[in-house]
Amino acid sequence: MVVHFLNQSTMARQQHVSCGRDLICIPDISNSLQMATYSGFDFIAMPIVHPRFKREYIEGKAKDRKGAFTRPDLILPSQDWSSLVVGKLSTWIQVDSPDEVVRKNSEGALMEELLYGSHLSLPAIMVPLTGPKCVNLSRCLLSHLQGHSNHQVWIHIPMVAETCAEGIIENGNKTVEGWEDEESDSWRWWSTLRTVCNHNKRLGIALEIPADLPAPDVIDRWLGEPVKCAILNTNVFLTNKKGFPVLSKAHQSLVMKLFKLDVQMMIAGTNHHPDKGIKAYQQYLDHLYQSQPPLSGVDAFAKGYEDYLQCPLQPLSDNLESQTYEIFEKDPVKYTRYQEAVYKALLDRVSDSEKETRVTVIMVLGAGRGPLVTASLKAAEQAERDVKIYAVEKNPNAVVTLYSLKEEKWGDKVTVVKTDMREWAAPQKADIIVSELLGSFGDNELSPECLDGAQKFLKDDCISIPCKYTSHLSPLMSHKLYNEVRLCKERDKSPEAHFETPYVVRLHNVTILAESQPVFTFTHPNPPPTDNSRYKSLAFNIEIESELHGFAGYFDTVLYGDIMLSTEPRTYSDGMFSWFPLFFPLKEPVHLLAGSKIVVHFWRNCTTRNIWYEWCLTEPVATPLQNINGRSYTIGL
Amino acid sequence: MVVHFLNQSTMARQQHVSCGRDLICIPDISNSLQMATYSGFDFIAMPIVHPRFKREYIEGKAKDRKGAFTRPDLILPSQDWSSLVVGKLSTWIQVDSPDEVVRKNSEGALMEELLYGSHLSLPAIMVPLTGPKCVNLSRCLLSHLQGHSNHQVWIHIPMVAETCAEGIIENGNKTVEGWEDEESDSWRWWSTLRTVCNHNKRLGIALEIPADLPAPDVIDRWLGEPVKCAILNTNVFLTNKKGFPVLSKAHQSLVMKLFKLDVQMMIAGTNHHPDKGIKAYQQYLDHLYQSQPPLSGVDAFAKGYEDYLQCPLQPLSDNLESQTYEIFEKDPVKYTRYQEAVYKALLDRVSDSEKETRVTVIMVLGAGRGPLVTASLKAAEQAERDVKIYAVEKNPNAVVTLYSLKEEKWGDKVTVVKTDMREWAAPQKADIIVSELLGSFGDNELSPECLDGAQKFLKDDCISIPCKYTSHLSPLMSHKLYNEVRLCKERDKSPEAHFETPYVVRLHNVTILAESQPVFTFTHPNPPPTDNSRYKSLAFNIEIESELHGFAGYFDTVLYGDIMLSTEPRTYSDGMFSWFPLFFPLKEPVHLLAGSKIVVHFWRNCTTRNIWYEWCLTEPVATPLQNINGRSYTIGL
Repeated sequence: MVVHFLNQSTMARQQHVSCGRDLICIPDISNSLQMATYSGFDFIAMPIVHPRFKREYIEGKAKDRKGAFTRPDLILPSQDWSSLVVGKLSTWIQVDSPDEVVRKNSEGALMEELLYGSHLSLPAIMVPLTGPKCVNLSRCLLSHLQGHSNHQVWIHIPMVAETCAEGIIENGNKTVEGWEDEESDSWRWWSTLRTVCNHNKRLGIALEIPADLPAPDVIDRWLGEPVKCAILNTNVFLTNKKGFPVLSKAHQSLVMKLFKLDVQMMIAGTNHHPDKGIKAYQQYLDHLYQSQPPLSGVDAFAKGYEDYLQCPLQPLSDNLESQTYEIFEKDPVKYTRYQEAVYKALLDRVSDSEKETRVTVIMVLGAGRGPLVTASLKAAEQAERDVKIYAVEKNPNAVVTLYSLKEEKWGDKVTVVKTDMREWAAPQKADIIVSELLGSFGDNELSPECLDGAQKFLKDDCISIPCKYTSHLSPLMSHKLYNEVRLCKERDKSPEAHFETPYVVRLHNVTILAESQPVFTFTHPNPPPTDNSRYKSLAFNIEIESELHGFAGYFDTVLYGDIMLSTEPRTYSDGMFSWFPLFFPLKEPVHLLAGSKIVVHFWRNCTTRNIWYEWCLTEPVATPLQNINGRSYTIGL
Repeated sequence: MVVHFLNQSTMARQQHVSCGRDLICIPDISNSLQMATYSGFDFIAMPIVHPRFKREYIEGKAKDRKGAFTRPDLILPSQDWSSLVVGKLSTWIQVDSPDEVVRKNSEGALMEELLYGSHLSLPAIMVPLTGPKCVNLSRCLLSHLQGHSNHQVWIHIPMVAETCAEGIIENGNKTVEGWEDEESDSWRWWSTLRTVCNHNKRLGIALEIPADLPAPDVIDRWLGEPVKCAILNTNVFLTNKKGFPVLSKAHQSLVMKLFKLDVQMMIAGTNHHPDKGIKAYQQYLDHLYQSQPPLSGVDAFAKGYEDYLQCPLQPLSDNLESQTYEIFEKDPVKYTRYQEAVYKALLDRVSDSEKETRVTVIMVLGAGRGPLVTASLKAAEQAERDVKIYAVEKNPNAVVTLYSLKEEKWGDKVTVVKTDMREWAAPQKADIIVSELLGSFGDNELSPECLDGAQKFLKDDCISIPCKYTSHLSPLMSHKLYNEVRLCKERDKSPEAHFETPYVVRLHNVTILAESQPVFTFTHPNPPPTDNSRYKSLAFNIEIESELHGFAGYFDTVLYGDIMLSTEPRTYSDGMFSWFPLFFPLKEPVHLLAGSKIVVHFWRNCTTRNIWYEWCLTEPVATPLQNINGRSYTIGL
């Protein structure tokens, strides 16, 4: 029984749901904790200061109150404080009150409670955010977060502003003012607070789930935010035939999404099923948790890599390792599609009448440890066509494997050639070339330049598999990814450099803000003169107020005819795990109003030595061009 | 005869106007230059490549043109190239064309011309900006600016978009497209370009002045931009009775403003006064230049300090130098007002009937080298009231001067006390205290804390001169100041720290975006309990699209009754030069749409050791809080 507060991405899923109990009034902490444990809860949330200790700083009748301002730390062992208790601030605190006395009294109490929470080593302190006016609260929190404490701050916020009346106000707070329309969007309150707090990484969200769920895009927007805890009031639950508390289908679906993000649960409010005990709520959530389908395909493969930034591979300038080849060779989709593509190409190229006499020259360019050679051989067998295969590979370590496979499996049909395809003096010309040089953004591992280098030994009607590939981009919001990039530190690199690099990343705690659009397309064969530089502008319409942190990059490719591979969400090749998306960060978050437009510009620039991308926005605001002249990131030829 | 391209702020004004001649077609450069010199011009602007050398890179009939792409550098001595010639790009270049062939041909020519301009060491290259689509142009320029050249880039842009038709398009460019309303604001084109170019400091503006001048706020907006050259087409000139070219009153007024910003002039277009010669235009501009009134008051005092960032004084923790005292003592306004204030206070305090019997105890707190003592003595003489003056000063070096003045001038009425007023055990209580502890932002030299420290030796009805002061803030735009802060570098300081410091600065190349509003007010005497922390939100309405780079800080103070001092523009105390404004920078420029609202929050925070300011925006977007907990800047107590 322990509350996990760090995003400990582990290879396996937790065994049980992590669920806490929100308590308002606690006469005896030790006893309450025991009761909660007995009912299956992993932690409790409770006021740091009991309301009867309320005191005032500047003016007021409680100003000169004598004695301690709350209960002593000795009530619980320090280990319990630091793992089982989430602290809650006094609900009367209003540091954004226009009344200066209320404000200053509140500031005093806020700092005292935060510091007492730190003193107890509480893992998290929950701070209610009840309205749009929160800039002084933001300042106070940031001021405290600069200090020596290390607890998290969970901003307790309703998913939609109306819940406020049911949720937080029930706890005694009465600060609801006349809001303008735009001010009733609780996400906006959060957005202001976290921006003023400069996206502090210790800020999280305790999200109050309403009985009436909002539109899907409002829900999705929260999924790109650092939600640490979902608060389910007992009055959100329904009662099933047997008298147990259950959730509506819509709520179940939301809870499942939250589980995927490792969000903890919390039950608030009074027990509406006294005959079953409060335990029934926890048991129901655990039941939902257990009923998640097992991880499969790319989810299982990606477990532990969620939102983890990796620098893209540079297989052209660096040789891949054995382990890397091994992982990619296990992809259950990719090589099947390649085999189909070669099969169809062979049938189109050699008619039945010629099949006894004509030998098709297939060159596998970048053969690695041979999976495309094997796929080509299988395709030839299936098509009943005779082939001569050249397996061309520049990595001398992988060539060892190729020779071994030739001797043990492939035989005379295959010739192994240890060379860079761009420098190869081929003994004959190719009918078909087969390659897998694509990166997460299609051309970003320099497939265009490599295949252009092979152009000289292609027959005029040579077929290239793949024959075409296109990169795609979607705007995205992710507090998490923005912070991951910002907190990258490397000696000898300016902090800006980390924002001028794209990253391979399994997108997880992310909201995609618009459907992707195509960016750069390359086709092969591509006879000279060639020009692989590109420039493209894209415009995205934004429907809901949000924040832009960067762009997700995908690609799709036509291998041959109608045989495709795609990492683009709408056309994703199910089960394929060879590529995670690419993430292009923006240096500064850009606030997006509902109905606004993003215009982004992408360049692919080339010299004889390097390829790189540059990018910037011109709408809704212009932003400084990132990675000018490839100053922070290039791909070596 | 030389063109000055650096903002060489000198103590004296230039003797003559700096004026160039824009030339379109030059058969013989040496000859043209001689002609221009003969007509009084300081430099010429001419195409880097003669149109007859036009060539193409990707496709087109000029693709494989043989021979050199322009005239050789030997035509002029290198010193002439580098001081007398501004290069102009070929007008057919359109790097933002949607036609890929046009775009790539243009990119090739653009880079070739920029590099040839660098090869010639031209001081500046003029680049026409003819429409809203300029992001690829921005990229090309930034790419070039990253290289080893050191010429300036002057963006040739019409002050209002309509001029485009008369100005740039006359030179052969036909890229005008169907613009949306907002796209016809030429300032917006510039704003996009400079933002994509990350406010590169080598970017300047060659501003084409239209015949019909726009509204004052449109003109003022350009005055916060780095205008290096104003282009006056001959058709903007009128003809006076004697047949000479002259400018309208409105144009004269604009030209005068541009002179103040050290903007150079350029005459473009054909001579419409052939009998007078093209010389007549230059002579007229020089006549205007010579007819500027001589610098006086604060202008003369501030010459050379324009837009120069200074760290605010900390007279409490650092002792001022003799030189500093000397400068401030010369202020022609300040001490006269203090004398009036003491005079009125003495009359109010001691009636005519008491004047023989009652001695008023005046304490000058922070006497420095004595100017307030002298003012108080004069006031007493004028009011015919008897006084006993204590001159309290903590700076031991200034106290030397005080003793000397007492012996030689003041005599027995004055007692010199070497102490910090906060620690002084005064032998009697004060009727009147006189102090000048105010900084550019009123309270920022800790007047509130110092005077609170003196509270214990004030009579209950003591008069404080000043009795009240208020700080004021205005939002401002200034490419120049933003760059000045950004280019601050100090070992052991993070670059962000420079954005978390306010600066004392003579605002010059700046546009004030809205009238100032009051921020923090302090009144004295101020009996305990005292609380000098403050928090204030201000909302400013913005009428014209612009960019926010920070805030100008001013103050006003009531010395006594109706005697005021003010640095706030609407109530400025004419002739006073003791204070330049304070500038609070923003870390990132914020783009402001017409009709939008700025909401800014300012805090004055205190500990027992330090005072500091923090600030952030919440509208039109939230920004990270600057200087949290005084991490980059505090004022020591």
